[in-house]
Amino acid sequence: MRYRLTLCWQGTAYCGWQVQPGVATVCGTVQDAVEAVLRERGSLTGCSRTDSGVHALGFVAALRCGCRMEPAALQRALNANLPRDIAVIGCEEAPEEFHPRYDAAAKRYRYRMYQSAVRDPFREGLALQLPRPVNTAAMNEAAGMLLGTHNFSAFCAAGGKIPPEERVRTLTECRVTQTGDEIHLTVTGDGFLYHMVRILAGTLLEIGQGRRPAAAMREILAGGDRSRAGRTAPACGLYLERVFYEKKEAGL
Amino acid sequence: MRYRLTLCWQGTAYCGWQVQPGVATVCGTVQDAVEAVLRERGSLTGCSRTDSGVHALGFVAALRCGCRMEPAALQRALNANLPRDIAVIGCEEAPEEFHPRYDAAAKRYRYRMYQSAVRDPFREGLALQLPRPVNTAAMNEAAGMLLGTHNFSAFCAAGGKIPPEERVRTLTECRVTQTGDEIHLTVTGDGFLYHMVRILAGTLLEIGQGRRPAAAMREILAGGDRSRAGRTAPACGLYLERVFYEKKEAGL
Repeated sequence: MRYRLTLCWQGTAYCGWQVQPGVATVCGTVQDAVEAVLRERGSLTGCSRTDSGVHALGFVAALRCGCRMEPAALQRALNANLPRDIAVIGCEEAPEEFHPRYDAAAKRYRYRMYQSAVRDPFREGLALQLPRPVNTAAMNEAAGMLLGTHNFSAFCAAGGKIPPEERVRTLTECRVTQTGDEIHLTVTGDGFLYHMVRILAGTLLEIGQGRRPAAAMREILAGGDRSRAGRTAPACGLYLERVFYEKKEAGL
Repeated sequence: MRYRLTLCWQGTAYCGWQVQPGVATVCGTVQDAVEAVLRERGSLTGCSRTDSGVHALGFVAALRCGCRMEPAALQRALNANLPRDIAVIGCEEAPEEFHPRYDAAAKRYRYRMYQSAVRDPFREGLALQLPRPVNTAAMNEAAGMLLGTHNFSAFCAAGGKIPPEERVRTLTECRVTQTGDEIHLTVTGDGFLYHMVRILAGTLLEIGQGRRPAAAMREILAGGDRSRAGRTAPACGLYLERVFYEKKEAGL
C-alpha cells in the first residue's frame, strides 16, 4: 500500500526532516509512529529535505507499507502516536508510482519576520524579530525582480551539489507583504537551491534596512556570485507552506 | 526606587507567577534577571497569582530596589537577561505607594480555544483544541448572563480562601467570539475568584457542546453551587490580557 501524508510540524525540536543518526528528526519520529500503529516500520519518503528548526505547514510524504488501513483511521492512529509538535493533517491512498519529490511541480515557502523593538515570547523560534523598522516597499520591489526564470547561483549556499549551470529555476511568486507587525516573504517556484529562500530573505532584509538599494537585487541575481548576496537568514522564520503537484496551481 | 513592569510570557515552562521552592516560576526568573542587572535581588510584587501553564500578555509587577536606572535602559537590560519566553514589554518609574494588586481596578482575561478535528502543532499549549464544532452563539448568549454584579460562588474552585458571602464581583465584559477557527472567551471584571475564568470557560463549553441549554447558566449562577457548574478548563488556554488601574477604562 502507498499513502500520501500531509504533515504539519513545529520544527524547533527537530534536526530537519531527513533521518540522521543520534538526533531527533521528523522522518524518524513519524516512522516511530508508523511502527507503533502498523507494527512495521514501512518506508517513508519526503518531498524535500528541510533544515534544522524549519517548520512545515503542508509537507508531503509517501508511506509505503504492507498493511492496508482506511486512510482516516490511519491518520487518527498516527496523530495519537505522534508528539504534539507534529500532526498528520491529510492522509489518502496514493498510486503505486507516486513520488512526493519527483512528482512535485512546485513548492511555496514563507519566511516570517516581525518588527518589534521588544521580542514576543509567543513568536520565539517561529519568526525572526526585526528590532528596527524596515522598508517593506523596497523589499517587495526587489523581490519582484526575482520573478521568472533565472540562474539562481547567487542564492545557492556553498555545499549544494548542483553544478552552476543547472541552477536555473522559475519563480511564479516572490513578494513581501506586511500585516500589522508581521512581514512575510512568500516565494513559489518550481524548485529551490540549498538555503535559497533563507539567502533571499537575508538579502531582502539588507535592502529593507537601507544597506543596499532595491535595484541591487537585479545585479546580485545577474552576477551569480553567492558572496555578493546577503547573509543566510535564520532557520526559525522558514515555513514550507505547500507542495504543488499540478503546474498550473502554482502559476507555471 | 520603584518601577512598574509590564510583562508578557508564555507560561508553558513555568509553575505560575508566585515563587515556590524547587520549581521554575516567572517571579523567580524575573528576580534572577534583576539580580544579574542590578546586583541586588530587589523586591518584586505581582498583580495576581497565576496558575501553572497560564500565559500573560500584560501582567503588571512592581519592582522595588535600591539602584536607580533609566527605565528604558532597565527594560533592555532585563530583556537581555531573561529567557526568551518572558519579555518586559513596559517599564516606567512608579510612585512609592504603587501596589500592582491592591491598586488594580479590573483585569481582562482571555480563554483561547480553536475548533479543528486535527490538532495544530503551532497552537500546542497555547489554546484548547475543540475536535468537534460548538454552538458559539449559545455560548455567547450564556456568557452575557454573567454580566453585571453577582455572587460568583458557583464558579469558585474549592480551595479558595474567600468566604462565600464575599464572592461578589462585577463583570463588565463577558463574551464569546469566533474568528476563523479561533473561539475566544473574553472576560473583564473588578476581581476574579480562584479558577473562575477556567470554570466559566468549562461551563460555556458544555453549553456550546449542547450538553446544557444556554439558559442553564442563569440557574447555575443563582444556585451558587460549584458542583452544578462545568469542569475547570485546562490552564493552557488562559491569558491574563490586561490590568486596568482606572475603573472607567474597564467600563466600571
